[in-house]
Amino acid sequence: MTADAADRATALADAARAGDRRSLARLLTAVENHTPLAEAALRRLYPEAGSAHLVGITGPPGAGKSTLVAALIARLREDGRSVAVVAVDPSSPITGGALLGDRVRMQAYASDDGVFIRSMASRGHAGGLSSTSAAAAAVLDAAGFDVVLLETVGTGQSEVEVAAAADTTVVLEAPEMGDEVQAIKAGLLEVADIVVVNKGDRPGAQRTAAQLRAMLVPSVGRGDADPSRRAPKRPEVIVTTAISGEGIPELIALLDRRRADGSSAEAARVARATAQVDGIVAQRIRDRLAEGTGGGATGAVYEAVARHELDPYEAADRLLALLGDGGVREA
Amino acid sequence: MTADAADRATALADAARAGDRRSLARLLTAVENHTPLAEAALRRLYPEAGSAHLVGITGPPGAGKSTLVAALIARLREDGRSVAVVAVDPSSPITGGALLGDRVRMQAYASDDGVFIRSMASRGHAGGLSSTSAAAAAVLDAAGFDVVLLETVGTGQSEVEVAAAADTTVVLEAPEMGDEVQAIKAGLLEVADIVVVNKGDRPGAQRTAAQLRAMLVPSVGRGDADPSRRAPKRPEVIVTTAISGEGIPELIALLDRRRADGSSAEAARVARATAQVDGIVAQRIRDRLAEGTGGGATGAVYEAVARHELDPYEAADRLLALLGDGGVREA
Repeated sequence: MTADAADRATALADAARAGDRRSLARLLTAVENHTPLAEAALRRLYPEAGSAHLVGITGPPGAGKSTLVAALIARLREDGRSVAVVAVDPSSPITGGALLGDRVRMQAYASDDGVFIRSMASRGHAGGLSSTSAAAAAVLDAAGFDVVLLETVGTGQSEVEVAAAADTTVVLEAPEMGDEVQAIKAGLLEVADIVVVNKGDRPGAQRTAAQLRAMLVPSVGRGDADPSRRAPKRPEVIVTTAISGEGIPELIALLDRRRADGSSAEAARVARATAQVDGIVAQRIRDRLAEGTGGGATGAVYEAVARHELDPYEAADRLLALLGDGGVREA
Repeated sequence: MTADAADRATALADAARAGDRRSLARLLTAVENHTPLAEAALRRLYPEAGSAHLVGITGPPGAGKSTLVAALIARLREDGRSVAVVAVDPSSPITGGALLGDRVRMQAYASDDGVFIRSMASRGHAGGLSSTSAAAAAVLDAAGFDVVLLETVGTGQSEVEVAAAADTTVVLEAPEMGDEVQAIKAGLLEVADIVVVNKGDRPGAQRTAAQLRAMLVPSVGRGDADPSRRAPKRPEVIVTTAISGEGIPELIALLDRRRADGSSAEAARVARATAQVDGIVAQRIRDRLAEGTGGGATGAVYEAVARHELDPYEAADRLLALLGDGGVREA
């Protein structure tokens, strides 16, 4: 990066931090595209971040996620708190996107400086979504937003990755989903800190909440060598009716309580930092290998493994050997 | 690894390759636990692998996955082909496992040397499931099984990871799932090479298949800088009734056709090899850092990032600097 480019990154970071909307938007586009500008700006902003509560909001289409986000914004604004929303859109050439519902509604906040809403495309790169979400959250955190909502739709991998970027993850469910659907969601519920049964005015909402509470009782006496799995957290289950605002103050109180609970927040922050740094390390190594060999040597190694001419362990050792003193040796 | 341990790995690998059931089972346990024995044995077996068709089978509970696997086994055995099944069980302290249905039924093949069935626990480590599945598949491939079925339940991340370890991925659906469920599954369908609508004797099966075919039409004219996403594959949709065997020969014919199509199989193999090697490289780097610093320096870096005292890019560069000539330098 030239001195000029570094100056531009600094200027953009400072303008974003000062709350300039266009600068924020430009910087988030750079983050989304993983440009060198984004990295330089993030390096400047990162020390300023760390005050916001990063809340992941996920759940299936139809559970009322957009309505819940709107209700949370309205209530947090009444409390005088600023809110940024990053809506991760799992659009793709196949599904065609637009699953996240009506963004037009969000225009209601266009003139409110305390609200910032931004959709980001999910590029479908495994692992990348988590670091992109974490970087976007850090930008908005440094820009001074009190709460950053990371909203995603529950389509397999993405919600797990977005959850990895949040302090607290809220999973929405609609009432009266069948047993099969409950089972499908088991994996999703494991990322939840708080489960919200929305559409609480429908019959069955309280029953669904009771079923979920029963489902989420930690099992006892299952030996597991991995200590991180010995004491599973037990998410709280709450019923809301986002469209009327019922249950929203209680949800915000739960979020605040979790935020105040230093131990779980600290553990989540270290886990997030670890995942983020490891992701950058892996990317740096791939970049170095590709730069140093023009991609040729690396590609040849992968192809040899695909043809079973080389075992993957030997291949990994060869790639590591290509990495010399921070640079790349001749193959 | 001592010479003695290396001898034991060689003996175990050779016995597994010769088809000894107990050796196969022991080796797969070692693979599941990522022991040095597993790595040494895999290095020996890997050059012998590459002939089997690795087929991922995934879908929600209730779609009839176990019945389909049983029907595929029966038909492939009639054809004189041997089959190994790795059932990846996403059990966890929270969900309590046992989602994969009745394994007792599989006892029917206990005396048939052409069938081998093995459940493996999913340890919940992101990324690890894919390399474990790939390693287990390589063992069974080297042991001479013609078809290796990697069966998993669709609970978020796991099916995507298991799909990454397969040549061909089959996604099961039950007929008459609601619109919401279809949308939830959009992410899952993106990993599918073949979509099977099972329970074809139920009303609505053909309609569900038609809806899925319509959903899976690739969208046209969406610009995307990533060439791997420009031409999405279009999965084939087929209706089966696994319990009566209807549609099973057609499904096997589809699988065989895909297997014979060298181009897609080759691309899948290179992608799998790349993911597998990169996973080992990342693990090796984490191990080296932890060994060289007793974990202390690494942990301190992650914690500094969590406290926003260090930006994640600087942290990644520090960790990379700790890696010297294949070893670890003093921090």
